[in-house]
Amino acid sequence: MSTYEARLAALREQLKADRLDGFVVPLTDEHMSEYVGSYAQRLAWLTGFQGSAGSAVVLPQEAAIFTDGRYTLQVRAQVDGTHWSYQSVPETSIADWLKLHAPEGGRIGYDPWLHTDEWVKRARTALADKGAELVAVGRNPIDAVWADQPEPSRAHLIVHPDRFAGKSSAAKRQEMADWLKGQKADAAVLAALDSIAWTFNVRGKDVEHTPVALSFALVHDDGTADLFVASEKVGDDVRQHLGNGVRLHERRDFEPALAAMAGKTVAVDPERSVAAIFEALGKAGAKILAKRDPAVLPKAVKNQVEIDGHRAAQARDGAALSRFLHWLSIEAPNGRVDELIAAARLQQFRQECGDLRDLSFDTISGAGPNGAIVHYRVTEETNRPLERDSLYLVDSGGQYPDGTTDVTRTVAIGTPTAEMRDRFTRVLQGHIAVGRARFPEGTRGSQLDSFARQFLWSVGLDYAHGTGHGVGSFLAVHEGPQRIAPVGSGQAGGDEPLKAGMILSNEPGYYKTGEYGIRVENLVLVVPVEAEGAEKKLLGFETLTFAPIDRNLIAVEMLSPAERQWVDDYHKQVLEIVDPQLDGEAKAWLEESCAPLH
Amino acid sequence: MSTYEARLAALREQLKADRLDGFVVPLTDEHMSEYVGSYAQRLAWLTGFQGSAGSAVVLPQEAAIFTDGRYTLQVRAQVDGTHWSYQSVPETSIADWLKLHAPEGGRIGYDPWLHTDEWVKRARTALADKGAELVAVGRNPIDAVWADQPEPSRAHLIVHPDRFAGKSSAAKRQEMADWLKGQKADAAVLAALDSIAWTFNVRGKDVEHTPVALSFALVHDDGTADLFVASEKVGDDVRQHLGNGVRLHERRDFEPALAAMAGKTVAVDPERSVAAIFEALGKAGAKILAKRDPAVLPKAVKNQVEIDGHRAAQARDGAALSRFLHWLSIEAPNGRVDELIAAARLQQFRQECGDLRDLSFDTISGAGPNGAIVHYRVTEETNRPLERDSLYLVDSGGQYPDGTTDVTRTVAIGTPTAEMRDRFTRVLQGHIAVGRARFPEGTRGSQLDSFARQFLWSVGLDYAHGTGHGVGSFLAVHEGPQRIAPVGSGQAGGDEPLKAGMILSNEPGYYKTGEYGIRVENLVLVVPVEAEGAEKKLLGFETLTFAPIDRNLIAVEMLSPAERQWVDDYHKQVLEIVDPQLDGEAKAWLEESCAPLH
Repeated sequence: MSTYEARLAALREQLKADRLDGFVVPLTDEHMSEYVGSYAQRLAWLTGFQGSAGSAVVLPQEAAIFTDGRYTLQVRAQVDGTHWSYQSVPETSIADWLKLHAPEGGRIGYDPWLHTDEWVKRARTALADKGAELVAVGRNPIDAVWADQPEPSRAHLIVHPDRFAGKSSAAKRQEMADWLKGQKADAAVLAALDSIAWTFNVRGKDVEHTPVALSFALVHDDGTADLFVASEKVGDDVRQHLGNGVRLHERRDFEPALAAMAGKTVAVDPERSVAAIFEALGKAGAKILAKRDPAVLPKAVKNQVEIDGHRAAQARDGAALSRFLHWLSIEAPNGRVDELIAAARLQQFRQECGDLRDLSFDTISGAGPNGAIVHYRVTEETNRPLERDSLYLVDSGGQYPDGTTDVTRTVAIGTPTAEMRDRFTRVLQGHIAVGRARFPEGTRGSQLDSFARQFLWSVGLDYAHGTGHGVGSFLAVHEGPQRIAPVGSGQAGGDEPLKAGMILSNEPGYYKTGEYGIRVENLVLVVPVEAEGAEKKLLGFETLTFAPIDRNLIAVEMLSPAERQWVDDYHKQVLEIVDPQLDGEAKAWLEESCAPLH
Repeated sequence: MSTYEARLAALREQLKADRLDGFVVPLTDEHMSEYVGSYAQRLAWLTGFQGSAGSAVVLPQEAAIFTDGRYTLQVRAQVDGTHWSYQSVPETSIADWLKLHAPEGGRIGYDPWLHTDEWVKRARTALADKGAELVAVGRNPIDAVWADQPEPSRAHLIVHPDRFAGKSSAAKRQEMADWLKGQKADAAVLAALDSIAWTFNVRGKDVEHTPVALSFALVHDDGTADLFVASEKVGDDVRQHLGNGVRLHERRDFEPALAAMAGKTVAVDPERSVAAIFEALGKAGAKILAKRDPAVLPKAVKNQVEIDGHRAAQARDGAALSRFLHWLSIEAPNGRVDELIAAARLQQFRQECGDLRDLSFDTISGAGPNGAIVHYRVTEETNRPLERDSLYLVDSGGQYPDGTTDVTRTVAIGTPTAEMRDRFTRVLQGHIAVGRARFPEGTRGSQLDSFARQFLWSVGLDYAHGTGHGVGSFLAVHEGPQRIAPVGSGQAGGDEPLKAGMILSNEPGYYKTGEYGIRVENLVLVVPVEAEGAEKKLLGFETLTFAPIDRNLIAVEMLSPAERQWVDDYHKQVLEIVDPQLDGEAKAWLEESCAPLH
C-alpha cells in the first residue's frame, strides 16, 4: 500500500464490500477543523495532496480532487493526474460534480462526523436528480484500509492561565449562560476545538501548530459545563483549574450525552458542528436552535490582557524575524542558503527568544518560482537554493503563550528586476491602503478587500486569495469569523462586521507562476479612531507586526507622499520596538534597513 | 375616507369581516415591480408614505411601517406616528416584527399576487413560533375598502423598433429557447414587466416613468411565446410587429394558462415571480425550475445599438441639464427660484430637446435641508425657495426612445461654507475613484463600493444608500441585476459580476440632516480596458453623462493630481459634447464652467 494508486484501488475494493458506489473525502475532522491531527489526514493519505484545504470524491471509474485558487499549482504537482481529475472551487463543487458524474441510482457514502448538516442537505438534493442516494457510513471506509493510520494524540492538556487569557473560564461560561437564557435554550454544543480551548482556558497539543485538544463540550444555562476529553490527557493541574463547575467525561461519551438531551433546547452551530451531532440530537428529541457558537465572537474580540500579550509576543517575534533577515542579508548572497536551511534558521531565531511553544503553521519558505506557490511547503524534493537576483518569500509565525504571530516578508536576493520592484510596490501600496483605512463601525471585512487590490487591478493583475484572516490568542492562526475577503465568491467571505479588538492579517500578494512570488503581511488590530466632526464611530487598524520591509524592492517614485510617510513611520516603529533587542551587526543592519526612504 | 386614520380604521373593519388578525401591505404589484401603477399604490393610500420602497403591517391594535435608510426622514414627515410605528430595514423585517407582535394563534393575511414565494416561506416560519398562521387572501382587503381605487391603465402598447433595440424579438426569443433546451425546460415564465418589454421589443405607459405594459408572458422552447395583455391595448402596429410567433391572450388568462402546464418543466424566477404563480404551477402538476428570468442578463448587457442610443440620448440630456444649470446660475441668486419652479424649468429644457417621452423618475429638487432627504419629492407643502449661501441638489432623468438617463448635480447658490466644500470634494473624490477604477472581469459591484466611500469614511462620515444601480434602455431607471453596493447588508447588494456593456449610476453622496444634501451622479458604461502585461481581462468605466460639476464646490487643494486631471478631462468632454448644442450666454457660461481648475 505504498503507492497512491494502490490506496485508491484498496478504497474502491472497500467501497464495493460496503455496497457503496462512491465516497466523499473531506479534509477536516469531527470538529470541522481547518488543520487536523495526523489520524484525520485522510485526503493526504489517499491522494498525496499536502495543502490545507481540499476534498475528493471517489467513484468506481472516476476520482476527482477539489481545491481552491491557492492550490492550483500544488495539486498538480502532488496528485497524479492519471487517476485524479483536478476540479477548482468555487467554480464547481462536490455537489455540482456529483450531479454530473454520480451513477444513476447509486449509493454515495459520506462520514456524518466529517460534514456539516448543510453540506449533507445540499449534496442530497444534487444527487436526487440522478435518483442517487447519499448514505451515512458507520465506519469511515478509508480507516478500514489505512493500515498504519496514526492513533489520535494522547498529549496532555495545559492550563492557559488568566494572566494570558484575561478572563476566567467561569466568567466566560457565565456570559454564555446569560446568552442561553436570552435564547430560551438549556445548553450549547461546543464542537470547534478552539472554542473549547478558549472557553475553558486550556490548550492542547493534538493538532500540529494549533494548541488545541480533541474534545467536545456542552455549556449549560447555569454556567456549568460537561467537557468530553480523554481522561488520560487531563492532569491534576488541569482538573484543579477547571474546578467543580466542569464535569469531565471521556470523549466517546459525547454522543450518548447528546442522546440524553430529550426535551431540551440546544444551541448548535451549523457551520461548526457536524451532521452527526444534529442527527443525534434530532433522534433524542431535543429542540435544535441553530445559532453561532457563543464562543466565536468573544474569542475574536480580544480583551486588553490578550492585546497586551499579543504586543509582547509580536515584539519578540519581530526581533527574531529581524535577526533572521539580517542573517539572510549576509548568507544568501554567498549562495549558501536554500529554503530548508532558511526555514530552520528562522525557527532557531524564534526558539532563542525562549517562549516559543510551536510554529503557528509550517513555514512557507519559497525561493524564486516556489514563492509563486501560495501555500508552498518546502520538502527535500522541492528544496531550492536562494539564487542571486531572485526573490525569496518567507511566511511564518510562532505560537507563544501570550500570542500567535503570522508575518510574511519578501526579500530581494541580489538585484531585483524593474518588474519585481513594480509588482512589489503595488502589493505594498495595497497593504498600506488597508493599514491606513478608516471605516465606520459595522463595516465588514469584505468592504476593505479591494483597497488592497486596486494597484494591481489597475495594470490587470490580482491575487487568488483573501487579503486577511483573523488570528487567535495562542490559538488558531486562522480564526473566524472576521476576514478581509470578497463575499459572494463561494469561499468563506468577509461578511462579519469588524469590531475593535479583532486581530487580522493584512497580506496582499502577487504571484508570477514559474518566476516569483510576492507577499507583504503584517497583523493588525482593529482600534477605535477619533476624528473631529465624525458622525459615526470610526475604526482603523494598529499594526502589531514589526520587521523591516525590504527597501530594495520599493520603487519609491511610485509612492504617494502619504504612502511614503507610512513606510517611514512604520520603520521608525520597528526601530523603537526591535532595535533595543538587537546588538552588534544586526543592530547596525536594522538601523540601515529602517532609515527613511530616499 | 379622506383621512389616513379613517382608512386604517376601515381596513381594520374589513379584516374583521374577513376573519383576519392582520394584513401585510407591500409596495409592489403582481410583477414585483419597484415602481407601480396608481391602482397598486396601496401603501401610499393607506399610510400617506410617498417613498418608492416600503411596506406595512396592520394588526388590530398596532400598525408598523417599514422603510430603509433612504426614507428615515421622509417616513416621519409623511406618516402619522400616533397610528404607525416606524421600523427600519434591514435592522428589522416584517417577519421579525410579526414574530414579536403577531397575536398568538392569529391569522395574518397576505395577497399571494404581491409577495415572492420565498417571502411567504420566511414569514410563515416566523409566525409558526406564535402558532399564528399566514393566510392567502382571495381579494385584497385594501381594494375592498378603497372606493376610488384607480382602474389599471388602458394605455396602448408601442413598438420599440429594432433601430433602438439592436436585436429583434424573434432573435431574443430564439436565444431563450436555446437556453431552455439546455435546461431541459419547456417554457419560461416572464413576470417582470421590463423583461417582457425587452423580450418583445414593446413599450407601454402603464407605470409612471417606466415605459412598460401590465402583462405576463410564457416563452417556449421553440422560440414562440404567449403574451398576456389586455387586448384593447394592442393596436395593429403592435400585432404586426409581434408576428405569428407570439400568441396574444387577455391578461386575466395567465393564471388559467399556468393551470394548463401539467407535466411541463417551467423555469420561474423566484425573485421576480409572485407566490401565486408558484402555487398555480404547483397545483397544475408542472415541474418548477427556479432560475433567473432569462431576459435579465441580456437586458443588462447592452448591445452596440443600445450603447450608441444611450450616448445620443445622454448628449441631448446633458445639453438640457447644462441649459438648466446656466438658467439657475442667473435666476437663483435673485431669489426667484423655488424647488417646484426649478423642477418644472428643468423638465421644460428636457422637453425642448424634442425626444422626451417621460421623465425617468420624479425629479428630486431639494433646496437646503430638503436636499438631505435622499429620495425627496417636492410638493406644494414642502416647497422651499433656493436661498442664498445654500446648496441645491437636483436628481433627475429622462426617458428617450434611445435611452434612459439619470443624473444628479449639487449646486452652490451664493457662497458655500468651507464645510460644504470639504464634504462636496470628498463625495467627488469618491465619484472619481469609482470612475477611474479598473478591475478584472468577474469583479462584483460590491467590490467597488468602498472606493466611493473612503474619503468620507476617513473623517467619520458615510451615506446610507448604495453607490450605483443598473439603468435600462428606454426602460426602468433602476434595473438589475448589477449594482454597486455592499453585499450582506440585507438590502439588494452588488453581488453580480460586472460585464462590458452594463450601464450603472455612480452616485456617492453626503447628507447633513436639517442642513444640506450633496450627491454627484453620472451614468457609466462598463468597457474593456487594455493594459500592457495584463494577466486578466480588464474592465473599467466610460462616463456617459455630460454636464458641468460645480467648480465653486470643489476644494481644489484636496484633490490629488490624478483627481484634478480627471475633473479637467471630464469638463473637456462636456465641452466637446454639449458646447455645439448651446449658443449665446449659455455657451459662454458652459465654457467658463468647464475651464481647467486653478
